[in-house]
Amino acid sequence: MSQSAAVNRRFVLASRPQGAPLPQDFRLETHPVPEPAQGQLLLRTLQLSLDPYMRGRMSDAPSYAPPVAVDAVMVGGTISRVETSLHPGFKPGDLVLAYSGWQDYALSDGTGLLRLDPEDAHPSLALGVLGMPGFTAYMGLLDIGAPKAGETVVVAAATGAVGSVVGQIARLQGCRAVGIAGGSRKCRYAVEELGFDACLDHREPDLAARLAGACPKGIDVYFENVGGAVFEAVLPLLNPKARVPVCGLISQYNQPAAAPGQLSAAALQRAMLNRRLRMQAFIIFDDYGPRLGEFRKAMGDWVREGRIKYREDVVEGLENAPDAFIAMLQGGNFGKLIVHVA
Amino acid sequence: MSQSAAVNRRFVLASRPQGAPLPQDFRLETHPVPEPAQGQLLLRTLQLSLDPYMRGRMSDAPSYAPPVAVDAVMVGGTISRVETSLHPGFKPGDLVLAYSGWQDYALSDGTGLLRLDPEDAHPSLALGVLGMPGFTAYMGLLDIGAPKAGETVVVAAATGAVGSVVGQIARLQGCRAVGIAGGSRKCRYAVEELGFDACLDHREPDLAARLAGACPKGIDVYFENVGGAVFEAVLPLLNPKARVPVCGLISQYNQPAAAPGQLSAAALQRAMLNRRLRMQAFIIFDDYGPRLGEFRKAMGDWVREGRIKYREDVVEGLENAPDAFIAMLQGGNFGKLIVHVA
Repeated sequence: MSQSAAVNRRFVLASRPQGAPLPQDFRLETHPVPEPAQGQLLLRTLQLSLDPYMRGRMSDAPSYAPPVAVDAVMVGGTISRVETSLHPGFKPGDLVLAYSGWQDYALSDGTGLLRLDPEDAHPSLALGVLGMPGFTAYMGLLDIGAPKAGETVVVAAATGAVGSVVGQIARLQGCRAVGIAGGSRKCRYAVEELGFDACLDHREPDLAARLAGACPKGIDVYFENVGGAVFEAVLPLLNPKARVPVCGLISQYNQPAAAPGQLSAAALQRAMLNRRLRMQAFIIFDDYGPRLGEFRKAMGDWVREGRIKYREDVVEGLENAPDAFIAMLQGGNFGKLIVHVA
Repeated sequence: MSQSAAVNRRFVLASRPQGAPLPQDFRLETHPVPEPAQGQLLLRTLQLSLDPYMRGRMSDAPSYAPPVAVDAVMVGGTISRVETSLHPGFKPGDLVLAYSGWQDYALSDGTGLLRLDPEDAHPSLALGVLGMPGFTAYMGLLDIGAPKAGETVVVAAATGAVGSVVGQIARLQGCRAVGIAGGSRKCRYAVEELGFDACLDHREPDLAARLAGACPKGIDVYFENVGGAVFEAVLPLLNPKARVPVCGLISQYNQPAAAPGQLSAAALQRAMLNRRLRMQAFIIFDDYGPRLGEFRKAMGDWVREGRIKYREDVVEGLENAPDAFIAMLQGGNFGKLIVHVA
């Protein structure tokens, strides 16, 4: 489809997935471009962020956020340009970080928009390393994980939008950073480009033994974003007083119910008591919203200085969003997944 | 046996229990009273504290503290009197909080002794509300639980040494305090004497439903000291951002391995993420030793003012320690369990 479409294409949630989402769980609709009323502005989506949390919104199981309604537009962060403005604070051409979802156009009353520099050569970083995923990594690791120099930090999905930042900040803090990722190519990238001390391929056998080998002094911080088998390999290695910030459980999202699980909650509690563990879940904007400015300053400096690297996986065309999203949940992306819409 | 024994009776660990400890896991030995060397003092045990953590020390399963060796004296906090002193800092008649264990006499070089007022009418409070259990309740609730006025705090073993203090401090903070205890007599005491808003008998059916009824606004702090079925009843009621300090898991201690458990660790992690829970285990002296002075001041005032009540369950005679301890692990005590030794 043309990127200068004078229609609004949008993906709505067609049905709630049982297990892994299927293409038919999304429905592409075509609507007229909406007209802003007084006080509103019309946003054109330039880039759409695809993130694991969206899987949770497709389900009506209890979660930390309300589900997307069936037949409603899929939610998502976007880099958007103001097309038309009947709002005194914005003018056509302004560039903003918005939450327009999986569609070409959206109306806004300005609430929640974050203004970006229209000259910014790389605005999509506001969806990744300088945005929600980077903020999640920064606060989860530094505030909850509180790593000290010489400690060992482990993170899975190590080349993903969050994990890659966790590992690099851990290195900046003087920690040993051990990643876990899917496939030798990602593992090599984590070590050679991102500076992880080691990265293990979770698709190879004996993850637990290899992880023990890579963490000779145990694990002091495990940044939890995957859950499941990785967590079960990590738990025996956690040192006394280890910290486990929990930002996501991507390995579980496609499970219709809690995975059968080798490990009981009772065993987990016992391990926590024996080793005085701290496990704390967080939702970045709910828990750390007031510290966004601190993050943007620190991470902006690090990225400018080349101390934190990033990698984007850009998919061309809104029409390809469902397939890219489905693949991401299986580890199919390599870097921050972004859809180039217009 | 005579309390003026000129021998030292002591209970050693005869064998590691499988499941619930049996009387034959303890062995009563009689030895000569030891003689202090230069720099040492001889302590006479007046009162011995019996506490659930001792079950962990009987086992060589991984734990937060090394096990008692087979044939070694069972450990335990004591109120002791100095009999003989070859140490410049102590003189006969001094009263101390010591860690002499399950025996009539012990030698000490003074390390770790806490001096008590020899005129104190009630020194055994240093084993309970003013000691380790009270300190555990105080720090776990206030520092990790961080309850705010109007919130709901739940604690099990609600008439025990820790739980009774948790509930009363919760009330002092303006919280709704809901206890769980074994039997109607304990529950009545928790409400009528300790001031809990409600107390549920875990021996009656449908704990989960009754707990939901007693916590109409959900649970903001669950002070975990029992684990197992109580935790499984609590988890669905935890509010977003609830805190779970974990100081013990008494329901699990007699399980040879992790209980079969209705709940998987994966489901627990999922609940934590969905509701941004914080679960943190702690060992009171390891984690909060430097704040002992703050605790003693605050709790001393509360006890003096009658704002915190306590109840002791005193067993006469060292020879009865094993039976009392075995019963305590099944909830047989009613209040802080103390053995009157001499």
